[in-house]
Amino acid sequence: MVFLNKEKLLKVARKEVLADLLVKNAKIINVFTKEIEYGNLAISDGYFIGVGDYKAVEEIDLKGSYIAPGFIDGHVHIESSMLTPNNYAQAVLPRGTTSVVADCHEIANVCGENGIDFMLEASKNLPLDVYMMIPSCVPSTKFETSGAFLRAENIKKYVNNSRVLGLGEMMDYPGTINGDKEVLKKIELFSHKVIDGHAPGVYKEDLNAYCLAGVKTCHECTTPDELVEKVKRGMYIHLREGSQTKNVRDLLPGINQKYYSHILFCSDDLHPLDIGKIGHIDNNINIAIQYGIDPIEAISMATINIANCYNINDSGAISPGRKADFVVFDSLEKIEVKKVYKNGKLVVSDSEVLFSSEHLDYTGVLDTVKFNIDNVNLEYKLKSDFVNVIGLIKNNVTTLKLKRNVVLNDLIFYPKLNDDLLKLVVIERHRLTGNIGKGIVEGYGLKDGAIAMTIAHDSHNLVCIGDNDLDMLCAINKIKDIGGGIVIAKDNRVIDYLQLAVGGLMSTENLEFVSNKISNLEKIARKIGVSKDIEDPFLQLAFLSLTVIPELKLSDFGLFDVNNFRIIPLEVGDN
Amino acid sequence: MVFLNKEKLLKVARKEVLADLLVKNAKIINVFTKEIEYGNLAISDGYFIGVGDYKAVEEIDLKGSYIAPGFIDGHVHIESSMLTPNNYAQAVLPRGTTSVVADCHEIANVCGENGIDFMLEASKNLPLDVYMMIPSCVPSTKFETSGAFLRAENIKKYVNNSRVLGLGEMMDYPGTINGDKEVLKKIELFSHKVIDGHAPGVYKEDLNAYCLAGVKTCHECTTPDELVEKVKRGMYIHLREGSQTKNVRDLLPGINQKYYSHILFCSDDLHPLDIGKIGHIDNNINIAIQYGIDPIEAISMATINIANCYNINDSGAISPGRKADFVVFDSLEKIEVKKVYKNGKLVVSDSEVLFSSEHLDYTGVLDTVKFNIDNVNLEYKLKSDFVNVIGLIKNNVTTLKLKRNVVLNDLIFYPKLNDDLLKLVVIERHRLTGNIGKGIVEGYGLKDGAIAMTIAHDSHNLVCIGDNDLDMLCAINKIKDIGGGIVIAKDNRVIDYLQLAVGGLMSTENLEFVSNKISNLEKIARKIGVSKDIEDPFLQLAFLSLTVIPELKLSDFGLFDVNNFRIIPLEVGDN
Repeated sequence: MVFLNKEKLLKVARKEVLADLLVKNAKIINVFTKEIEYGNLAISDGYFIGVGDYKAVEEIDLKGSYIAPGFIDGHVHIESSMLTPNNYAQAVLPRGTTSVVADCHEIANVCGENGIDFMLEASKNLPLDVYMMIPSCVPSTKFETSGAFLRAENIKKYVNNSRVLGLGEMMDYPGTINGDKEVLKKIELFSHKVIDGHAPGVYKEDLNAYCLAGVKTCHECTTPDELVEKVKRGMYIHLREGSQTKNVRDLLPGINQKYYSHILFCSDDLHPLDIGKIGHIDNNINIAIQYGIDPIEAISMATINIANCYNINDSGAISPGRKADFVVFDSLEKIEVKKVYKNGKLVVSDSEVLFSSEHLDYTGVLDTVKFNIDNVNLEYKLKSDFVNVIGLIKNNVTTLKLKRNVVLNDLIFYPKLNDDLLKLVVIERHRLTGNIGKGIVEGYGLKDGAIAMTIAHDSHNLVCIGDNDLDMLCAINKIKDIGGGIVIAKDNRVIDYLQLAVGGLMSTENLEFVSNKISNLEKIARKIGVSKDIEDPFLQLAFLSLTVIPELKLSDFGLFDVNNFRIIPLEVGDN
Repeated sequence: MVFLNKEKLLKVARKEVLADLLVKNAKIINVFTKEIEYGNLAISDGYFIGVGDYKAVEEIDLKGSYIAPGFIDGHVHIESSMLTPNNYAQAVLPRGTTSVVADCHEIANVCGENGIDFMLEASKNLPLDVYMMIPSCVPSTKFETSGAFLRAENIKKYVNNSRVLGLGEMMDYPGTINGDKEVLKKIELFSHKVIDGHAPGVYKEDLNAYCLAGVKTCHECTTPDELVEKVKRGMYIHLREGSQTKNVRDLLPGINQKYYSHILFCSDDLHPLDIGKIGHIDNNINIAIQYGIDPIEAISMATINIANCYNINDSGAISPGRKADFVVFDSLEKIEVKKVYKNGKLVVSDSEVLFSSEHLDYTGVLDTVKFNIDNVNLEYKLKSDFVNVIGLIKNNVTTLKLKRNVVLNDLIFYPKLNDDLLKLVVIERHRLTGNIGKGIVEGYGLKDGAIAMTIAHDSHNLVCIGDNDLDMLCAINKIKDIGGGIVIAKDNRVIDYLQLAVGGLMSTENLEFVSNKISNLEKIARKIGVSKDIEDPFLQLAFLSLTVIPELKLSDFGLFDVNNFRIIPLEVGDN
């Protein structure tokens, strides 16, 4: 953290006192005028003093490199990196990210206020500014069992926290549009801050209602037209490049210089492997540049546009009085971050992270996997052989609601009797309800094995997919033993696993450990037949329980028909 | 005032309940996408519901006219209109203005907190949203006597008023740059809101310091370069078209689509005659259109840009959930407002104002002219005939510091012995100090008469200009009798006067009365010789005491050398 001592900084600005650092020979990206500025940039006490005729204690010569404001992720669930905030900071800083607007929705679904408190506390003294949006929809629907139920009265205490920028993505768009009292109460609480949206495919009069309720942003556009309709109503649109959900390329054709200021970048959910491989917000910027957007405008979408939208007044630009967060790189054609400064201090040099993680206090977020293993019954006894099946779509978290005739044996469904159909179960793991939702999935491609995990949006119950009960039970058992994580079983034994002890969502280890582990688990998953059409075997699985994305999902209550917003049986009936 | 009943509005948005009003066949200006939107626009309970397939109780067919969001004046001193807020609303609404960001700096200099309270109260229930910036510099310098002295502790109580958007123009830019503790304390108080700036000709390192202190806007740019330098540092720039101070045409060459969002329109000080003759913010828009700026971008500078800069989230655009403030006109080449709607109600039709003013409570703002007439000595006894003279510049509030040899009689200065040199006195009228500042002015052009008034920026002492003591005393006497105003005397009698009983600044009468009176007074002023180079005889006079604008001014302390920030004698010495 930096402390703003205005009297001291003004002395430096007036040249009465030496600056701490003078950045010389840099091409300074000005996100206000969208031009390159030349001159010596002074920094003191963690803040930009400005460009001018300054002297400083230390000088660095950037020999013509570019510098841009540190990148901001406009919307991210840190938990999706499977890293705790300190390790997440180590992962994203080398990509130039110096601030994130985080929605701790995942751990809040598991641990409620303890989860929010943990994320706020664990992200406090990092060389990464973690701003928080308070989860609005815990649970995300009434059709699942979550670890917590956050009403307006539970989140009220976060309203005036200076690191809290507003209310997290209002996924309950039907409730918002319909004026649900509890939804409106939450929005009212945060009405002086920002209300994030989440409204895939909401148009016309419904979109009027959604905006009228007070929602300011959306990161769920899928077409350029949808983007334009939302900007027309004043919304700010995140172009998202996550591991599973990507819409930057799809939406770029819809943007126009006239409303560039309404365009923001975000990652939403980014897998640890992808941070290393494809990067973070630098990736969004590079995609936009490659598409033909002016590089400085693209950088603005990752910096000042987000700062303006979220009322972050002290970062997002290289200008007097803002935090001296900046990245150094050599080309505007493709940004490859060489150095990163946070609060005026070098924190990353040639991908090497120059700070270490602090010890965290895990109170309230461990031991979160609670269910009675003896009650887990994986048998699928059906009334008919005409069933609803969750159909996977390549590179997409939406699914199809398929109808399939299946082969049964004594009215019992066995995957091994049915080509490319697998059992998918969601076992409630928070409240010992004994709930198990059962579904059938097409297109995942696994054979002779099972995968179980406690990342399962948004309630993060235990999800398990497999083609035989023995392997599924084996994986489920291991999950309970390790208090959450990802487990692959085959031939009734655990092949490998990643422990995610923090809420069943995050590892206590660093990026390298988690990446290696995930990498190995993915190799195993491919070996046991997970389809190449499934970009990420685990993320795909994690989204199959997300009951706010169409068409057919599975919660611990059973199959959920998202378009009709109700639980339906496995067997095709009148629905 | 309108009350936002979200549950009801959402019902209308969802088409469950009829809207109040449906605007049909309008070309709707969308300030987000900068395009024309077509469709039916629904309004209910004073708010826009949105464009869609709506039905309403009442329909209006605009037959292809344009509609734009109601215009906002980004920075104005209402007092300069000489009208109280209710009469001001009647004056500006026909020009399409539905909101103003007002700085009640003038009356605060006379009446202190009573003045601020009066302006807040008197502007409360008007069909014009009057947002307030709390005066930051009362008095504007230490080199004059004002009616009030507002320290941070005095203005603290206004910080959380929802109609208060921040701290008014920080004219003490030297104090800001130099880190004056009291200045920083005031800025700190309002740091969660907007700090308005006023920094003519402040550049480079000083500008870094000024921005670093927290100032967000400036309306005092004089060149395109100055504008660009300020935008580079993140400032928002008002292009101003007032009666005396105009910079829209000068600054337009400096603006660029890349930072249009940083460009705002304002009037600052607008004379009642000019509101009728040249208009208000519609005039700024039309000048920009004429210059070649895209009309929708020009309208944005008068609407959404200001709303965004000042965090006014519920107006500035025709979009769901914002106040239904809009103007109707027929051409984008030159905007001529036909109808104005405020909170969904027709308030102006073909220049006719459809609402009447309420009675105001003048407690605390009357009887503000206090000085002892017997102590007024207008004799100029000098030590030398080489004197400092205030030189007027055509169409400018800045003055020149001239040095002139004058003809004296027995060491006494008589204007009648010196071509085009007049006596200018500033008589303290707040605290009975008996102070009289004496100066000599070149370029005003009056003969055989005197003009006195109690509008004299910023302390609003009594200012009197004339070429003989008899007429000057006569005018000064009348000012005291009527409790403030504008008086012209000739041949030892009052020719005409305008009473400004409210703080010596504002009339209790309406626009028509005040305009006619001013018009007649101006005719008289011209008759007694006020130069045609002086665009406005009274405004010119009112700015001669403004000690924050270069070069030479006059306060009740004496001649003020603005560049050196000190009082100097009439006689040229070592200065």
